[in-house]
Order: sequence, then structure tokens, then C-alpha cells
Amino acid sequence: MIRHTVAFKLKHAAGSQSELDFLQTTRKLAAIPTVKKFECLRQISKMNCYDFGLSMEFASPQDYQIYNDHPDHVHFVQTRWIPEVVDFLEIDYEPISLTTLNS
Amino acid sequence: MIRHTVAFKLKHAAGSQSELDFLQTTRKLAAIPTVKKFECLRQISKMNCYDFGLSMEFASPQDYQIYNDHPDHVHFVQTRWIPEVVDFLEIDYEPISLTTLNS
Repeated sequence: MIRHTVAFKLKHAAGSQSELDFLQTTRKLAAIPTVKKFECLRQISKMNCYDFGLSMEFASPQDYQIYNDHPDHVHFVQTRWIPEVVDFLEIDYEPISLTTLNS
Repeated sequence: MIRHTVAFKLKHAAGSQSELDFLQTTRKLAAIPTVKKFECLRQISKMNCYDFGLSMEFASPQDYQIYNDHPDHVHFVQTRWIPEVVDFLEIDYEPISLTTLNS
């Protein structure tokens, strides 16, 4: 399993219709077939500059690649992400089984 | 629900016994009573500098505070986190219900 996350900051004013519209539009990513456990999140720590996050899981690197290459993802990045996101950080995780780290 | 995450980089060599010992020790945090869904993770994106991550969930801000103040957490931070972690970023998330954003 790979958990793909991205924390981000929009150029829109907090609580604006433009912000709402962007967040609503992220739901289209959840419909891409290999995406599991899609979440749109509010970032609340004062230890970083980001206001929102997306999180999704893939069963395999191949499923992740299918998402990256999917026309709906490419279209979202070109038409919404690049114009409207002013800062972001991608963090991708795989589980570590601590009970088997020695094996 | 609050999902508290921290991406981090250790001073230890990759695959070293010191690295393994640090990761194993994080399990003690999972035993703090208000911690739910504790995960120790490997960070695999090339878009940031971090090698590992921890993720846990709290039912409320009060439960998060209980964790922060818990002697086992304070002891871990003082004796392991500060001496062994060279860089980190905290990111905390709350779910957004996109279907009710307009309400």
C-alpha cells in the first residue's frame, strides 16, 4: 500500500467561493479507478504553512502510476492545481511493520 | 477526529541498528491511552527530504493534549526525538466533508 498525500495552500481567500469550488472539484480525483480511501482534509497545525491536504491510497506503484497518468488527473493539475495552488508538499508513505523489522 | 502526522529524518545511517532501535521505540507512543490508529511509516516521495513518518489519530483536541502532556511522550521527545531527529515537519489534519461544504 502507498498512501499519497499532499499538503497545500490556495491563492484564494479563506472561506471564499473559489476555495470551496477548488475543494469540491478534488472529488473528481476520487473517481479515478485505482484511488482508494480518498480524503480532502483541513490542515490545522501551526507548525507549517499549509491549509489543506489530500490523501489517497494505492494498492501498488502501478496503481499510483495509473492515477498520475489518468487524463482526469492531468486535466485537474493543468486547469486547477497549477493556477490555484501557491505552495504544496507531497509526502508518500508505505507502512513499516515494526514487529518484523528485525526479520 | 484529528490525524497528527510527522515526517522526519534521522541522524542515523540507513539500515543501521540505531535507526531500527529508534523506529522500534516509537511503538511506546502507541500505548498512550488516547492514541488511535498509530502507524510507523516509510516516506518514499523524492519531493521532500524525509525518510520516515508517524501517524496517529485522536478523537478530540483534548485527547491530543493528553498525548502531548503524557510523561511517556515527553520522555520520548527529550531522550530520543531531540537527540536523534535532524529534520521534521508536523502536519495535522481534520476531515472535510465535501458534501456538506455548502451547508
